[in-house]
Amino acid sequence: MTRPPLPQDETTRLQTAATRHLWMHFTRHGSSPEDHVPIMVRGEGVHLWDTQGRRYIDGLAGLFTSQLGHGRRDLAEAAAAQTTELEFMPLWSYAHPPAIELAERLAQLTPGDLNRVFFTNSGSEAVETAWKLAKNYFRLTGRPTKHKVISRATAYHGTTHGALSITGIAGLKQDFEPLVPSTVHVSNTNAYRAAELTAGALEVQDQQSLERFGIWAADQIALAIEAQGPDTVAAVFLEPVQNAGGCFPPPPGYFQRVREICDEHDVLLVSDEVICAFGRLGHMFGAEHFGYQPDMITTAKGITSGYAPLGAVLASDRLMEPFLEPGAMFGHGYTFGGHPVSTAVGLKNLEIFEEEKVLEHVQQNAGAFRSTLEKLLDLPIVGDVRGEGFFYGIELVKDKSTRASFSAEECERILYGFISKKLFAEGLYCRADDRGDPVIQLSPPLIATTEDLEEIEQILRSVLSEAWSLI
Amino acid sequence: MTRPPLPQDETTRLQTAATRHLWMHFTRHGSSPEDHVPIMVRGEGVHLWDTQGRRYIDGLAGLFTSQLGHGRRDLAEAAAAQTTELEFMPLWSYAHPPAIELAERLAQLTPGDLNRVFFTNSGSEAVETAWKLAKNYFRLTGRPTKHKVISRATAYHGTTHGALSITGIAGLKQDFEPLVPSTVHVSNTNAYRAAELTAGALEVQDQQSLERFGIWAADQIALAIEAQGPDTVAAVFLEPVQNAGGCFPPPPGYFQRVREICDEHDVLLVSDEVICAFGRLGHMFGAEHFGYQPDMITTAKGITSGYAPLGAVLASDRLMEPFLEPGAMFGHGYTFGGHPVSTAVGLKNLEIFEEEKVLEHVQQNAGAFRSTLEKLLDLPIVGDVRGEGFFYGIELVKDKSTRASFSAEECERILYGFISKKLFAEGLYCRADDRGDPVIQLSPPLIATTEDLEEIEQILRSVLSEAWSLI
Repeated sequence: MTRPPLPQDETTRLQTAATRHLWMHFTRHGSSPEDHVPIMVRGEGVHLWDTQGRRYIDGLAGLFTSQLGHGRRDLAEAAAAQTTELEFMPLWSYAHPPAIELAERLAQLTPGDLNRVFFTNSGSEAVETAWKLAKNYFRLTGRPTKHKVISRATAYHGTTHGALSITGIAGLKQDFEPLVPSTVHVSNTNAYRAAELTAGALEVQDQQSLERFGIWAADQIALAIEAQGPDTVAAVFLEPVQNAGGCFPPPPGYFQRVREICDEHDVLLVSDEVICAFGRLGHMFGAEHFGYQPDMITTAKGITSGYAPLGAVLASDRLMEPFLEPGAMFGHGYTFGGHPVSTAVGLKNLEIFEEEKVLEHVQQNAGAFRSTLEKLLDLPIVGDVRGEGFFYGIELVKDKSTRASFSAEECERILYGFISKKLFAEGLYCRADDRGDPVIQLSPPLIATTEDLEEIEQILRSVLSEAWSLI
Repeated sequence: MTRPPLPQDETTRLQTAATRHLWMHFTRHGSSPEDHVPIMVRGEGVHLWDTQGRRYIDGLAGLFTSQLGHGRRDLAEAAAAQTTELEFMPLWSYAHPPAIELAERLAQLTPGDLNRVFFTNSGSEAVETAWKLAKNYFRLTGRPTKHKVISRATAYHGTTHGALSITGIAGLKQDFEPLVPSTVHVSNTNAYRAAELTAGALEVQDQQSLERFGIWAADQIALAIEAQGPDTVAAVFLEPVQNAGGCFPPPPGYFQRVREICDEHDVLLVSDEVICAFGRLGHMFGAEHFGYQPDMITTAKGITSGYAPLGAVLASDRLMEPFLEPGAMFGHGYTFGGHPVSTAVGLKNLEIFEEEKVLEHVQQNAGAFRSTLEKLLDLPIVGDVRGEGFFYGIELVKDKSTRASFSAEECERILYGFISKKLFAEGLYCRADDRGDPVIQLSPPLIATTEDLEEIEQILRSVLSEAWSLI
């Protein structure tokens, strides 16, 4: 379980250097002085260890990333082999074998004719690329005024200026305005809050009302396109299951209706699968899982199981056509995009998916994960358990009957002040989030066993039970 | 010299897959059908090999990136060791040893108090981060209207929407408008075209007129800040030596005057050193080389010598201060930013810089590189040779006395149609570029020897001589 801790002076040295020099991401650095920076030193399978030698079960797969778990020697060897052969070559007018082979393999796996692969270094860069490609495509095909993007409330699509403009979380944007002035946000598919979203018109109580809510939510996209003017709208960016807000799966029929709307208005459907691809929902891609055909898929994270930075846009043949004309060029690129080592790791990652039947494992265990987590619904603080595959959100409430949420003060005190810290202290690495309503996010490595999933539930049960007494 | 070629069926398979699936960066895919995608398969030292077994001298360090040359086993081993220990952990509220140690090491190396390190995956992401940080800093310190950025004509700062807005190359932006509406571009320091830039008022003929031109160019920044209103301007983004346009070093005194202007108007000076850091000019940072103190340095590329994707923003202590207040947070981040393997590789890279005295090697050979390249000035097609350290641009003209440049048709026919292809056929990998006036860009690995630099000159001499007959 535990490992020997790092020598105390080594830990102190790391703590001091971290506090003095490392600017962490989305991190409050000015917390109370007795807090130390948690430093992870080791990973193996579904577990992580910190400087104290304490073991944590990784309930978040790093950050929705570590599909195959930690510390695998086979992926390290694939990286080392490529490094000694050709460690770097940009894809600027030149190519190299691992990028070519991974592009070919991805094209085989994508739904429909998403046969064109543009590599990036991250999900943000993939979203940036997809938006630029949409704009450029319409300019080259005689519809130069189509440039706007529709996305959903509380959806996270990245942090670079373009991706952040598409993101639907005001709190993440307000300090950086003005952003790109061409994005519009519509309702998401938060079925638990359907009554609020529809001003009381729709409450989701059964399959039928869920489907009605899905059609209503899809139609919000049509209304937005019509309000903006279809000639100004280039694309709709949607995650298969929306992460921020706490896991909103699409109601049945939602994406089919969205596809119709996009076709009707000649708007591209971008499936933002930075989280939902590579087995997270039990299929290679989320679009496949829900049976819809996007024009582009943006992805990153699980594409290498986190063993190397990589992202990609998978685009349909139609979108590349105008760029195949003599002299035409998509004037866009990243020095490290499609890095030889990252793409070699991506290839090996997909090989292991097949050899170890990772998708089958998720499909076989998704039902058990759901019912294990749904046991938590007997706790008074758990309002909703929702998700798909190995990807769940647990919404916390202070009154189950009214679905009343925490106040900002309660979020601080209970969600961050207690639950988040206590889960970690009890050995569960996961994420408390209140970009929408307060939720616990879960996304274990895809190799997690029934026992791992049950351990996660046990720790959550104990900590959430204790949290209830603080309300 | 040459190696055995790949088996023909393997090469054909790669060519077919590349043509069918790989969307390369900044690449015209629709060239004539007899053109094949050049595929690189192997790197070692300053050399690259393609599928045919042909050897190329790498005159561009990949893309201003491969400081230590190709195929090094020590960097592969550093990556593999970190991968098996802890292959991934995001820096979102947590830390890990290699990111902490690289942050500390970078802070020791940066000029002045640039002690805070925010890691990214690329140069574009570093520029995005620096702009967001500048805006957020001023909002937290009571100057919320400061958000605009000043940068220079023809300067390249990246391709994500924010970075692209800062980029000063209209041709790269026009297909993606509207961008972030807060950037203004001023004159660069193209001394060879000083007369054109100053409408005939200044011609650079000696050290004195060069200095006058530098002050004029710096003052354009002051004029832009005043025209926009100092209360609206957050930052100035400048490369130490501007790459796009073909290597514009700063005239003596330029950056000292820029620093004064920034101080006067409370505007942050961002030194965009995606290219110019890590020994490219002979110092660890370009700001150090030219003796000025920026508020932030943005970097990437050479930070790992290309062995793994990584970028960083190095910020002054002052900029982090408001984010150290209780509850404050810089709401920004990247899943793969500061990746354990990338930062471990970055650490090893810096270790090798020291062990192998790489900076000293560049300093000792920079003069020889300059005089070797300046020999080309005897060719009628070579108008100007300019640069610093191991970073040069060679401007091509069709009339040396009038400095007349190529027409668009001549650029197509001579620069791309002949020179670019012929240099490659003769075994030199480098870059022909006409984002400004037509130039050949050179940036060899920092381990290049006198013989390597002479070989580069020889190939250039032969191809440029032949090109002259086509004008």
